[in-house]
Amino acid sequence: MRTQVAIVGGGPSGLLLSQLLHLSGIESVVLERRSRAHVMGRIRAGVLEPGTARLLRRAGVGDRMDREGHPHGGTHLSVRNQGFRVDFEALVSEQVIVYGQTEVTKDLYAARDAHEGTIIDEVEGVTLHDAGGETPHVTWVKDGTEHRLDCDWIAGCDGFHGVSRRSIPASVLTEYERVYPFGWLGILSETPPVAEELIYANHARGFALCSMRNANLSRYYLQVPNTDTADAWSDDAFWSELRKRIPSAAAEVLQTGPSIEKSIAPLRSFVAEPMRWGRLCLVGDAAHIVPPTGAKGLNLAMSDVHYLHEALRHWYEGDRAAIDGYSARALSRVWKATRFSWWFTTLMHRFPDQHPFDQHLREAELDLLATSPRAQAAFAENYVGLPL
Amino acid sequence: MRTQVAIVGGGPSGLLLSQLLHLSGIESVVLERRSRAHVMGRIRAGVLEPGTARLLRRAGVGDRMDREGHPHGGTHLSVRNQGFRVDFEALVSEQVIVYGQTEVTKDLYAARDAHEGTIIDEVEGVTLHDAGGETPHVTWVKDGTEHRLDCDWIAGCDGFHGVSRRSIPASVLTEYERVYPFGWLGILSETPPVAEELIYANHARGFALCSMRNANLSRYYLQVPNTDTADAWSDDAFWSELRKRIPSAAAEVLQTGPSIEKSIAPLRSFVAEPMRWGRLCLVGDAAHIVPPTGAKGLNLAMSDVHYLHEALRHWYEGDRAAIDGYSARALSRVWKATRFSWWFTTLMHRFPDQHPFDQHLREAELDLLATSPRAQAAFAENYVGLPL
Repeated sequence: MRTQVAIVGGGPSGLLLSQLLHLSGIESVVLERRSRAHVMGRIRAGVLEPGTARLLRRAGVGDRMDREGHPHGGTHLSVRNQGFRVDFEALVSEQVIVYGQTEVTKDLYAARDAHEGTIIDEVEGVTLHDAGGETPHVTWVKDGTEHRLDCDWIAGCDGFHGVSRRSIPASVLTEYERVYPFGWLGILSETPPVAEELIYANHARGFALCSMRNANLSRYYLQVPNTDTADAWSDDAFWSELRKRIPSAAAEVLQTGPSIEKSIAPLRSFVAEPMRWGRLCLVGDAAHIVPPTGAKGLNLAMSDVHYLHEALRHWYEGDRAAIDGYSARALSRVWKATRFSWWFTTLMHRFPDQHPFDQHLREAELDLLATSPRAQAAFAENYVGLPL
Repeated sequence: MRTQVAIVGGGPSGLLLSQLLHLSGIESVVLERRSRAHVMGRIRAGVLEPGTARLLRRAGVGDRMDREGHPHGGTHLSVRNQGFRVDFEALVSEQVIVYGQTEVTKDLYAARDAHEGTIIDEVEGVTLHDAGGETPHVTWVKDGTEHRLDCDWIAGCDGFHGVSRRSIPASVLTEYERVYPFGWLGILSETPPVAEELIYANHARGFALCSMRNANLSRYYLQVPNTDTADAWSDDAFWSELRKRIPSAAAEVLQTGPSIEKSIAPLRSFVAEPMRWGRLCLVGDAAHIVPPTGAKGLNLAMSDVHYLHEALRHWYEGDRAAIDGYSARALSRVWKATRFSWWFTTLMHRFPDQHPFDQHLREAELDLLATSPRAQAAFAENYVGLPL
């Protein structure tokens, strides 16, 4: 089998790349290790930057997002149980859209199916060959049979644990990592969200986040020690702790109910450089991970897709140099978002080894954010996403 | 002897407080441990915030500053030997003024002398009595004779090592401290400054700062390990290292010459809370120290003076409650400036234990500052000083 671009990974970035390439007249084949049902069932991010929304619209998959998504013109920050709002629309003339990654993935599958895109799921033993050379190809096993796909380019959209990054020789790659000494305990609950917009709360007891998926589906998070397990947290214990950390005004109107999902996620910052090796280009989580504070993960993968699509389009149009800039162009935005996610995580969380001085610095910065339109504008600009 | 306000410390904050109180019809006596010649000879800070300049003008001591000081409408930051400018005037409609603390002190002495203010220098064994009670008084020895000054209020303007803060019981005071694992090696040189405005340089070899006092007096600094001594640095070694860290364009035009002063200063963040105990109010370095990056030390002392003068004026006018707000009002600004100084220090310096990830985050933040007017405006707002 032969295609132009072999896309390893059928999550939102692989699917969006495939869709954008198709619209540019470039063939691709998407390979996915899990079943489609599994991919579509994953609960992940839920906040889309306006740049991501524009990209999805350009790819022809923005209709349902624009119908069913919830535009948020601002967000709330809280310190010492006192909340204040940062008004994105007033400050930077942008909105984010609350629309689950699950829904984005559904829309992308529908679009690829409508265009008869080739997506092969439940592939095993995916292996990249000669990715650093001139005759790249990918092999895998499906239903007991080995398959081979020859291609011009391989796009590694297969996440942090995928095969793509591991196919690059260690001598070529530099990896940067920071693991945070806490996790996020998250629950989904079929209750109305406590507020119309998100609330990020810094509290001496630890961070809390009030988020949502829709008018009757709330998503709440608590910072917990990495040693905690989700099972050890009863719903009652969760709601009781959440109330203590969020703004008093929100705690008073919080509606609780049984959790329909409960899990703990670790927090990590990770960047691998470069994002291209020969004929292999890494995209999204395959090259970088951010902690979820500030909702940059999915959005950063989408901007990688944008840069890679542009570079490949130029390459197929005969401009062979554009692809040489892919890694540096993507990494420039990646590092800035990594910086923002690290900063916002540090600002809002309580670290086990922190000195009281650190908490004072964070509260001073939040006081500044509460009172300075310039500090708010700088925050908003990063939150809604730096320009592509 | 009796006065209304006993001011311990005859540096710029004690002198300015004395001057402002005088203009409000409130008597004070300034006590200074060193000789006037010593106080006037100290080389310290050199960048005045516009709020400090306005305060000095209101105190009637702004004429020479406005004649001889150098207004700077911006500053330069540098990373990887590439500089960029932050335009304070365009971003926040303010300028800072380069005018040495030595000159401010001279002007204040001249003003106090003109008003026949009482400044007693070379006092030994200054002791505060009943500062927590209702009959505060100060005793000291001069020329072998013990003296006593009864007063309504004591203003502790005697710096980090002074007696004022140490007179507050440890059970009352909470102290926060961070010592940085490096110092600043500074030289004065009778050469033209390398640039018209300051240059703050982040470099993998360490931080450097190009500053100045006037058109033929340059002040340069290098980050050095705390274990270094000034004697171990020859002038040649200093200039050679400075060239490696600053923007290439500046290095090319750097004029060098013999140093006329060379010393190493440690960097420290320190805040003591509260800033008032009974009839004693702490001011400036007596209550807080910032690292010099961003030039906040003198300016923060001046804003404390402003708040204390306002509170004492209200108190003498019969509003006994205003003084109760002094500590919280001053500390709100102190913590924000402490946050800025810590942030700017961390952004620009190389830490001995830092991970390559940290340097990438700092370079990403500097790249953001180089390209985002909003990030620059938030920086400029803090650099020129938050509103009083």
